[in-house]
Amino acid sequence: MRTVYADNAATTKMSKTAVAAMLPMLEEFYGNPSSLHTTGQIVKEKLDEARADIAKCLNAEPNEIYFTSCGTESDNLAIRTAAELGAKKGKKHIVTTAFEHHAVLHTVKKLEKQGFTVTYLPVSAHNGVLDASEVEAAIREDTALVTIMFANNEIGTIQPIEEIGRICREKKVLFHTDAVQAAGHLPIDVKKQNIDMLSLSAHKFHGPKGVGVLYAKRGVRLVNLMEGGAQEKGKRPGTENMAGIVAMAAAFKESCANMQEVSVRLTALRNKLIDGLSAIPHSALNGDREKRLPGNVNFSFEGIEGESLLLYLDDVGIEVSSGSACASASLDPSHVLLAIGVHREVAHGSVRISLGEDATEEDVDYILEKLPPIVADLREISPVWDALEKGTMTHRI
Amino acid sequence: MRTVYADNAATTKMSKTAVAAMLPMLEEFYGNPSSLHTTGQIVKEKLDEARADIAKCLNAEPNEIYFTSCGTESDNLAIRTAAELGAKKGKKHIVTTAFEHHAVLHTVKKLEKQGFTVTYLPVSAHNGVLDASEVEAAIREDTALVTIMFANNEIGTIQPIEEIGRICREKKVLFHTDAVQAAGHLPIDVKKQNIDMLSLSAHKFHGPKGVGVLYAKRGVRLVNLMEGGAQEKGKRPGTENMAGIVAMAAAFKESCANMQEVSVRLTALRNKLIDGLSAIPHSALNGDREKRLPGNVNFSFEGIEGESLLLYLDDVGIEVSSGSACASASLDPSHVLLAIGVHREVAHGSVRISLGEDATEEDVDYILEKLPPIVADLREISPVWDALEKGTMTHRI
Repeated sequence: MRTVYADNAATTKMSKTAVAAMLPMLEEFYGNPSSLHTTGQIVKEKLDEARADIAKCLNAEPNEIYFTSCGTESDNLAIRTAAELGAKKGKKHIVTTAFEHHAVLHTVKKLEKQGFTVTYLPVSAHNGVLDASEVEAAIREDTALVTIMFANNEIGTIQPIEEIGRICREKKVLFHTDAVQAAGHLPIDVKKQNIDMLSLSAHKFHGPKGVGVLYAKRGVRLVNLMEGGAQEKGKRPGTENMAGIVAMAAAFKESCANMQEVSVRLTALRNKLIDGLSAIPHSALNGDREKRLPGNVNFSFEGIEGESLLLYLDDVGIEVSSGSACASASLDPSHVLLAIGVHREVAHGSVRISLGEDATEEDVDYILEKLPPIVADLREISPVWDALEKGTMTHRI
Repeated sequence: MRTVYADNAATTKMSKTAVAAMLPMLEEFYGNPSSLHTTGQIVKEKLDEARADIAKCLNAEPNEIYFTSCGTESDNLAIRTAAELGAKKGKKHIVTTAFEHHAVLHTVKKLEKQGFTVTYLPVSAHNGVLDASEVEAAIREDTALVTIMFANNEIGTIQPIEEIGRICREKKVLFHTDAVQAAGHLPIDVKKQNIDMLSLSAHKFHGPKGVGVLYAKRGVRLVNLMEGGAQEKGKRPGTENMAGIVAMAAAFKESCANMQEVSVRLTALRNKLIDGLSAIPHSALNGDREKRLPGNVNFSFEGIEGESLLLYLDDVGIEVSSGSACASASLDPSHVLLAIGVHREVAHGSVRISLGEDATEEDVDYILEKLPPIVADLREISPVWDALEKGTMTHRI
């Protein structure tokens, strides 16, 4: 049976380059970079190289790169840093969107309990793409932070980061972006885009799981989520995940180098997939068609359950997601789809297809061969579809 | 040139078994365990297996094992959990020792700033081994936590954990132990030893860097250091470091299985090393000779700088540490040595030699051949040694 892994937004397979970079770190260069002997100092050099490589890909400085254990940790660190800096000046307002990743949403919600006010910008007007002027309008005298994701993890829509960055710079408000879905897939230039803090995670661009980065512009004094040793200028104690860091740097360099070529190829495949799926009646693409990640397709099919579609697709070797992996244990409809104005019932019948850089036309053809009849079959046995057809329920698409 | 890596307390080389367990997780089993499709669910099974394997080695239950990014994170999580639980009941006192790892010491110091009182038990009376009765005497009505390391990271002394556990159980006080140096090297049984929370780190027992465990007994409701997804029952959000977790479980199983054999062999080598180094005049073993980790030797040599000795040893292929790796950037003398009563001047002239499980008699002979003449040479050019010899300074050893 053909297998098509189309859940690259959940996680990616490590690239050959990343694996090759990682392997020597396990048995050959196994030292602790804090150790002063040769074995330690060789590893320290590799840590410095990885930091410089990642900085270069972001157009940042090496001393602005902090290694963390994941995108979630980076998001928490960024937001809590801005909250603490803000609170010292009596600024306790945060601007974000309604469809951020839970690592951001749950962190700002916790801050609400601690006396912060949060403005959740709506993202429904332009199908999941924010209007930068709404950010400008939301910023107040007491705004400590604007945190807006670079690209959405479910519907793949890309935000006007450079414009938002410029506004924040003008208004002198810290700007953080969760670039976990964007890094390695979209051009990032923290200077040009006026980004103060940026989170990324290695396993979303063919690096390993368990390692991430927080970029923090020089002068932004990070808080400590944990106390301990002097690693990462004392801001992130704990022995460095050297194999992960070195592999992440290799994967990031590779993804950034191949970005243009991969992007053009994936965008064509994505558009073919969107066109093909659009032929299914009462279906709809979620999120803007153009301003979206090259490999992301998110579709709703009325009258069915996304999870059933996922499992039937899995039976024929096609692996997709309903909602995000991080929220897959939840029975609630996706907060992202609700935020862009998708009806609750319809949101339940949605899947995310995220193509990887090795996706082929054959993969897309296979999905277009298998998916439509499964949707038809599921509708056949769906009481909701039956009600929609009989007119006792109203079509939303 | 012969090379002897004798800094295994700083970090270890990954074992063949751990590497073999890790490799398939990079390219073959690369899914996200939260994903519902086959690729995700296969990985979910591996996550469950790793959890069960680690639980078994500790005599814990699988649902008592939380995966973290390092020992430091586990320590922070444990201590802040106890602090929050205690604070709710008006209990704001913590008992610890003066020679804990910085991940513990700096965390409790931060709590002091937040209104907690901390008792730092002295550890000098029995050369780095605590008297359990002192723990009993220190526990008050408002004690929220006793946190005492299983074995010290610098001098390797082993604490009477089972006795302390029994006291804490009787007094109904939470007991956490930082077992980062002990795990894989000393027998741990959380039930028999009455441990409520325990931290460990994979890279100290031939697993990878960047992954650790917090064991928390059923009923201990952990706080969140970070907010985000539902991973680890919502207590530790972020996509799981699958390669690290699986490799850690393999390394831990292997270390526990070989523990008895390795311990006997290393203890003999360690004792030979101690005996040999004791022949150097004005030198002293730091920490109890018997109640110490099988591979740990920590020695002070009067009149020299530990760092110079480290660098000269490095020149002949012998890699050791002065102080702990985590504190190696610091010029202060080791807080551990000061805590056991070593004089400030003498503490500066100390090195830790931590043998790995593959250490041989030839390694020990090589150290005993090279180290004494280096100490003699360094003393030759040392103004402090000159003063000691002339009697204008007083010998402390």
